[in-house]
Amino acid sequence: MKTNPGRFFEDYSVGQVIRHAVPRTLSGGERALYHALYPARGALYSSDDFARSCGLPQGPLDDLIVFHTVFGKSVPDISLNAVANLGYAEGRFLKPVYPGDTLCSSSEVIGLKQNSNGKSGVVYVRTTGTNQHGEPVLEYVRWVMVRKRDLDAPAPETSVPELAEAVAPGDLIVPEGLRFDEYDTELAGEPYRLGDYALGEVIEHVDGVTVEEAEHMLATRLWQNTAKVHFDATHREDGKRLIYGGHVISLARALSFNGLANAQMIVAINGGAHANPCFSGMTVRAWSEVLDKAETAVPGVGAIRLRLVASAGRGTELRGADGKYAPDVLLDLDYWALIPA
Amino acid sequence: MKTNPGRFFEDYSVGQVIRHAVPRTLSGGERALYHALYPARGALYSSDDFARSCGLPQGPLDDLIVFHTVFGKSVPDISLNAVANLGYAEGRFLKPVYPGDTLCSSSEVIGLKQNSNGKSGVVYVRTTGTNQHGEPVLEYVRWVMVRKRDLDAPAPETSVPELAEAVAPGDLIVPEGLRFDEYDTELAGEPYRLGDYALGEVIEHVDGVTVEEAEHMLATRLWQNTAKVHFDATHREDGKRLIYGGHVISLARALSFNGLANAQMIVAINGGAHANPCFSGMTVRAWSEVLDKAETAVPGVGAIRLRLVASAGRGTELRGADGKYAPDVLLDLDYWALIPA
Amino acid sequence: MKTNPGRFFEDYSVGQVIRHAVPRTLSGGERALYHALYPARGALYSSDDFARSCGLPQGPLDDLIVFHTVFGKSVPDISLNAVANLGYAEGRFLKPVYPGDTLCSSSEVIGLKQNSNGKSGVVYVRTTGTNQHGEPVLEYVRWVMVRKRDLDAPAPETSVPELAEAVAPGDLIVPEGLRFDEYDTELAGEPYRLGDYALGEVIEHVDGVTVEEAEHMLATRLWQNTAKVHFDATHREDGKRLIYGGHVISLARALSFNGLANAQMIVAINGGAHANPCFSGMTVRAWSEVLDKAETAVPGVGAIRLRLVASAGRGTELRGADGKYAPDVLLDLDYWALIPA
Repeated sequence: MKTNPGRFFEDYSVGQVIRHAVPRTLSGGERALYHALYPARGALYSSDDFARSCGLPQGPLDDLIVFHTVFGKSVPDISLNAVANLGYAEGRFLKPVYPGDTLCSSSEVIGLKQNSNGKSGVVYVRTTGTNQHGEPVLEYVRWVMVRKRDLDAPAPETSVPELAEAVAPGDLIVPEGLRFDEYDTELAGEPYRLGDYALGEVIEHVDGVTVEEAEHMLATRLWQNTAKVHFDATHREDGKRLIYGGHVISLARALSFNGLANAQMIVAINGGAHANPCFSGMTVRAWSEVLDKAETAVPGVGAIRLRLVASAGRGTELRGADGKYAPDVLLDLDYWALIPA
Repeated sequence: MKTNPGRFFEDYSVGQVIRHAVPRTLSGGERALYHALYPARGALYSSDDFARSCGLPQGPLDDLIVFHTVFGKSVPDISLNAVANLGYAEGRFLKPVYPGDTLCSSSEVIGLKQNSNGKSGVVYVRTTGTNQHGEPVLEYVRWVMVRKRDLDAPAPETSVPELAEAVAPGDLIVPEGLRFDEYDTELAGEPYRLGDYALGEVIEHVDGVTVEEAEHMLATRLWQNTAKVHFDATHREDGKRLIYGGHVISLARALSFNGLANAQMIVAINGGAHANPCFSGMTVRAWSEVLDKAETAVPGVGAIRLRLVASAGRGTELRGADGKYAPDVLLDLDYWALIPA
Repeated sequence: MKTNPGRFFEDYSVGQVIRHAVPRTLSGGERALYHALYPARGALYSSDDFARSCGLPQGPLDDLIVFHTVFGKSVPDISLNAVANLGYAEGRFLKPVYPGDTLCSSSEVIGLKQNSNGKSGVVYVRTTGTNQHGEPVLEYVRWVMVRKRDLDAPAPETSVPELAEAVAPGDLIVPEGLRFDEYDTELAGEPYRLGDYALGEVIEHVDGVTVEEAEHMLATRLWQNTAKVHFDATHREDGKRLIYGGHVISLARALSFNGLANAQMIVAINGGAHANPCFSGMTVRAWSEVLDKAETAVPGVGAIRLRLVASAGRGTELRGADGKYAPDVLLDLDYWALIPA
């Protein structure tokens, strides 16, 4: 059989490194599409001029374009037979990506744990995206539950990696040259700097976007993510196409501009859960909670740690009385962004 | 509250200048999307080679890309709490915009008139788009009806600007270098030059396009227009998403290629009304009427003044016996375009 | 009447050459859209770096972008009044097209045959796409059935061109500089080279994509194809919009990556039939059959001849017992692709 059956749980071993296929050159075309698919308005990614006023050579590609591109390449090797995408940790953006750059992706297996039912197991990988110069631009850990092909295959030795609860502020990478001393808040869209946000502050981002099938499929293909659940209406019994979790991340992050316009660049992903599935026809809203604030090595460049929640309902309830995610919650993401101090 | 509540009627004063947020660098990606969203085929905007044969350095970005980008930036400041977009006047395209250019937008309040009901008022603004060199590329007046936040706020002194019924031919700006003496009508798609059109001539543009939700949302986001009525199916009681009026303008203008292929560049918008709302599922058609013809300062470059009407029905009825727009009419736009003489 | 009524059967004569309108400059924007519209993952078209490792100056635009662009221009002149698109032959890709290139298109009428009913006839054209240097980049023959305007117009002398059943391997053009001696199968996505495929081998490409109205309209407009059946839901009595056959070609070709990842570049189209119409809501799948294998003039660069079938169902039935295409079959395409030997 020439087609890719994907890897099953017993095909992984700790220490294994998988180079993912199909390098990708990104251009202004991918950026334009990103701005058509999501209400993205971050000034640094929207304007070459604004980016230059912040010390960068031009506007980089949106941070999440890089995330989706690197992630998408890993799907055929990591999550084609995944039952669930369980979590993210230790994600760091290491270098901006510009139009014309070419991204590759590879993953190292850093943990394995067979489930007690013997039918599946959890695979932990550290995925790294690199540019055409071989420089890493992004790394993150994710773990997925993967089915076994052969239920009689022996369970591997359990090995669960120790993962940081959050990236430490000292480990955040400020892009070379970035400075916010001539930052124009009026052009950026809002006056609020790091000092204007309080720990625990919750921001409802007001707007909602009702999601269409054509949109999430355009997005998911753009990242060369081939998981059939996103495209094939005959795959699930209910005839629904599951929306790629990354689509919800980008939608929520873009909606969060309204209230967080100056949280310009995502520099770390501390954790994340796709709490409930998202389907076409849902109206997605977002709210954020300020989890932490920090300085960086660059004076004037602060870091804000945010919980970003996407919801198919209204309000800011995250979990029910039972401690489980409320049924409307689609995404619970924990990230660090750079913001003028 | 950190999110933008938008301005209300009492927040405006005559003479006030508002710099709109989020400059935008436009690339070939925005052009490709424009040509995917609308059946645009104007040769000057489609081909660098054709543009060079007309004396320009390369194909500029479609005139309406510039309009939508400049307009979109003004939405959070001008029309977030607008009840209605009432009109346009004195629109002029001042300089072509090329891939790589960065656009900013600002508006000056030039008139205010509180409505007799005391609940809202009309705000007149002159919006100007500028490129990264600070050169104006587009200016136009629009007026919108905006709600009051505080019904007890005193009415401002009424000030209604005098607006030209149409831009005078002598005020039309022909882009530097533009000439039509080597213009290839066969490549452009039709043989008709300015002299082939008669005053009062009506052209039915034949084709129709049935509009989809995904398309108008992609377009509207691309221009960073955030008005929630376009995106949120829970916003209106009827569950419909109102299509951004500019989407209808672009659709109708692109459809008008069939019969007006040589009306290459819009150089002025004399007026315009969004006669009835447009919703997904409608099949949009267009017809044009020749309102005027003129010479420009450049020999061989003529100007044609056109009424462009978009309709959800068939035929060329503009108004009913009562003088009101016929119920199928979506758009009544009055513009000047440059055309080989 | 200023609008284009299209040509009717009696408007064609053998030897007639028609220059098609509206040259088009293609950029990274069109490529990004192509990769959003189709699950395209061929490494040579996805990555400038990969393309350079294969001896090309950068990643060319996907072969079918070129096909659709050249084809789209011919629609207003050739198939606006077509009843059916009957076939393709002798298609050859002659030179890669890169972002920034401008394409023109022209067609020579090479055959005419009036139908016995006297109401229509078959028109054979050889269409050629050229770049801004006047170099041909693609040529192909297609024939369409076109209505007569005037049923009393005399039948032309019947002239049916002799068309090759397939492009001979010796006539395939390998792009200048292309070599596969440093070809990285891991980056390309699959290990299979020409020698790994057997004549008669059938590959089911596994994945399916459920098609949406917005997607096929975006695609068809992108190629400036204006045939109203694709856009106007009021055109057919059943309210359906017929999906442009080329959309199905691109969808099937992209799906065939899974099993044919190394069949990098289409260099010839030997034949093709749009067996049944495709409509929104169908889930399109694809399978391929290896028809032939050949060497090219360049050592290491092989050629594989493939039948590519798109189906709205499952399985690999091509024709029923009656010899007709099975009702689920949408496309039966015969092409040559270059593949590492």
